[in-house]
Amino acid sequence: MTQMSEARKGNITKEMLEVAEFEGRTPEFIREEIARGTLIIPANIHHIELGNFRPVGIGKAIKTKVNANIGTSTSWSGLEEELEKLEIALKFKSDTIMDLSTGGDLMGIRAAILKHCYRPLGTVPIYEAMHRVNNDPLALTKEILLDVIEDQAKQGVDYMTIHAGVLREHGPLLMDRIGGIVSRGGSIMFRWMTYHKKQNLLFEAFDEICEIFKAYDVSFSLGDSLRPGCLADASDEAQFAELKVLGDLTRQAWRHDVQVMVEGPGHVPFDQIKMNMELEDQLCDGAPFYVLGPLVTDIAPGYDHITSAIGGTMAAASGAAMLCYVTPKEHLGLPEVEDVKQGVIAMKIAAHAGDIANQLPGVRDRDDELSRHRHTLNWDKHFALAMDPEHCHAVRDHQSPDAEALCTMCEDFCSYMNFQKSKKDIESMEAIENDGHRITHKEL
Amino acid sequence: MTQMSEARKGNITKEMLEVAEFEGRTPEFIREEIARGTLIIPANIHHIELGNFRPVGIGKAIKTKVNANIGTSTSWSGLEEELEKLEIALKFKSDTIMDLSTGGDLMGIRAAILKHCYRPLGTVPIYEAMHRVNNDPLALTKEILLDVIEDQAKQGVDYMTIHAGVLREHGPLLMDRIGGIVSRGGSIMFRWMTYHKKQNLLFEAFDEICEIFKAYDVSFSLGDSLRPGCLADASDEAQFAELKVLGDLTRQAWRHDVQVMVEGPGHVPFDQIKMNMELEDQLCDGAPFYVLGPLVTDIAPGYDHITSAIGGTMAAASGAAMLCYVTPKEHLGLPEVEDVKQGVIAMKIAAHAGDIANQLPGVRDRDDELSRHRHTLNWDKHFALAMDPEHCHAVRDHQSPDAEALCTMCEDFCSYMNFQKSKKDIESMEAIENDGHRITHKEL
Repeated sequence: MTQMSEARKGNITKEMLEVAEFEGRTPEFIREEIARGTLIIPANIHHIELGNFRPVGIGKAIKTKVNANIGTSTSWSGLEEELEKLEIALKFKSDTIMDLSTGGDLMGIRAAILKHCYRPLGTVPIYEAMHRVNNDPLALTKEILLDVIEDQAKQGVDYMTIHAGVLREHGPLLMDRIGGIVSRGGSIMFRWMTYHKKQNLLFEAFDEICEIFKAYDVSFSLGDSLRPGCLADASDEAQFAELKVLGDLTRQAWRHDVQVMVEGPGHVPFDQIKMNMELEDQLCDGAPFYVLGPLVTDIAPGYDHITSAIGGTMAAASGAAMLCYVTPKEHLGLPEVEDVKQGVIAMKIAAHAGDIANQLPGVRDRDDELSRHRHTLNWDKHFALAMDPEHCHAVRDHQSPDAEALCTMCEDFCSYMNFQKSKKDIESMEAIENDGHRITHKEL
Repeated sequence: MTQMSEARKGNITKEMLEVAEFEGRTPEFIREEIARGTLIIPANIHHIELGNFRPVGIGKAIKTKVNANIGTSTSWSGLEEELEKLEIALKFKSDTIMDLSTGGDLMGIRAAILKHCYRPLGTVPIYEAMHRVNNDPLALTKEILLDVIEDQAKQGVDYMTIHAGVLREHGPLLMDRIGGIVSRGGSIMFRWMTYHKKQNLLFEAFDEICEIFKAYDVSFSLGDSLRPGCLADASDEAQFAELKVLGDLTRQAWRHDVQVMVEGPGHVPFDQIKMNMELEDQLCDGAPFYVLGPLVTDIAPGYDHITSAIGGTMAAASGAAMLCYVTPKEHLGLPEVEDVKQGVIAMKIAAHAGDIANQLPGVRDRDDELSRHRHTLNWDKHFALAMDPEHCHAVRDHQSPDAEALCTMCEDFCSYMNFQKSKKDIESMEAIENDGHRITHKEL
């Protein structure tokens, strides 16, 4: 069984109930969305069996989710550091985690992460397949890839990025790009295809992958190998040609009752983001869109958690279901623990701001409650509702160690204090006779 | 003479020429915009006389500008620190600076800042007026305020925030707000009005202020005393009632040939930002809109440089002319030097991303050039084009001290290396017969 097969049979699973409660929606609403493919609950039956698993729904109709990538690389790998990254990502409420390890004992690292990760875990199996062929992309075979996929499915991985959408036919569309291919997995698959002059073997083995996924209820994260790696390449023919294939693969997976989300860009100018979200919705029949940022400028390496939070907000406000975080380390090196924290916070801001823009019921309540405490100078309650209370206290204590009522910004000029004193005078004001200066935007 | 009076006479000033060159527009275009009031060049004749002044244009039709607020508070004031803040703000290309000092020797601090600030300097004169009455808002008089304004104009201040738009009639509109008034100057003016039961004295003295501004070519930054201080208060009747008054004051200033920009919010949900920009454009006849963020969520104190960069991008993409930075210290305390740096960079990202969205001619060239170097692994040229080259080098060197070609993120999995190897294979590919997977968004 998969969540999708159950939903289509009209059954509400334990996972659907939990998701419904968190989202403040009816279980029946969640079930319908899953049956239609517009919402997924990545929940490998073996991950659930590990105990302590807390399911997450990913779909356009519910709150926007955030993913944090962790994982080793060849020269920078230590299990302990990865577990620290996992811990801090979960602490700041990353909704899913991807283990993108490419160095060290991949199976062992994954097992340890799975044990501690109570949220859905995703992987990119082609990385482990590369390990099995000594990092030579030309030596990859269908058998090796299917073996790795099955091994990871058995282990309990909840969703996997499968680079099945890039086809041989797309090659010529890439020749004029500035950034070529920036997906690691995609570039490996592409190298194999162009050298062997054969079609993408993941595309050709797609039904077999679906059967494995169905057996463990692994969800697809359909990889966008041709996502733009710079603004100039955004929204080009290559990107959309692959997206069209991803739409076909989405429907193919659904025929197996396998859940699907679709991966998206990348680097996209701010004014093109909405169109990108709408196009995916159209070509992939509403399958959840899981985007990487997008980054809205290329000139800010070191600050790409910010450039991606900007694009991520617009994406969330335009229909994206999950935002992959981007850390300040992007383009510079492998993220470390503090980078993970900064990346998660920036993207959680984006997801939340997008949900507010979409006017999801109740989603602004926490903002309003925090603001009430902010404006009565109740620092403790104000900070308790903030995304990072410890940081707020540390920053404030640095300048105002005695926790006095006012802050070092305004002091005697505190607008709250002035306004409070004015309020009683307003209350006794005569009725307003001249309201010539009043206007609401409803009049426009 | 003012830039506006000259523009209206058909004269092109030295400052207009410099702005035209930086913006890549004709001097005549700049002159026309100034004559119409849709672009300003804040350039006090006495600041120009100090030498080394580099004029900046602020308007919807040209690149989005960024302002950095610096300045002391009562308990946290040192001239040296303020000059460091000024230096770092200018280093990271803040287009204007505001000195918001409320503590220490205000005249002396301002003189030192003016001497080193080669960009337009703005102030909020009501702060100095408060000093002259021992911080008692009830003791303010028209004479004191006009004296301060004239003193600062003589000193060379290029633009001043004048809180003339909040009226007695607006009082009752504020009673149900969560945040009340969050403008320091606005709350002082409001306290005076409600206590004395008199109309806003800056509103009543507006023609006299215009005459002073005209004599030195000081530009108005019409203060938005009633800007929302939290999402719940955004786009309410109070905010728009004041904005309507600011539109009237804009036209009143223009009759004196005095340049005007209008200040705007604040805290605004992402989906309301565009409407806010359009409303200002309509009510204020296209006068440049200078917004504070806006912040798109209230729950991220400590990270409000990010929440405001998100809103700032949407604002810039929807017509805002200048974005006031917000530092990570917002809501917690007075910004220090590192906060100033982080704030400027975040908002410069927003301004640039907005300009790209608006497809200003040539504005993406730097992104494209950087991306070319990024994708050929030319780290030095890549970083030289970044907003913060030193930071990029430091981050990279921390993990890859020997400056090898690859980065610790991908190493053997480098997509660039794989794609380069594939390219020659694509070039020799047979003609594509099946293009059933090709699609462009033009078809939609």
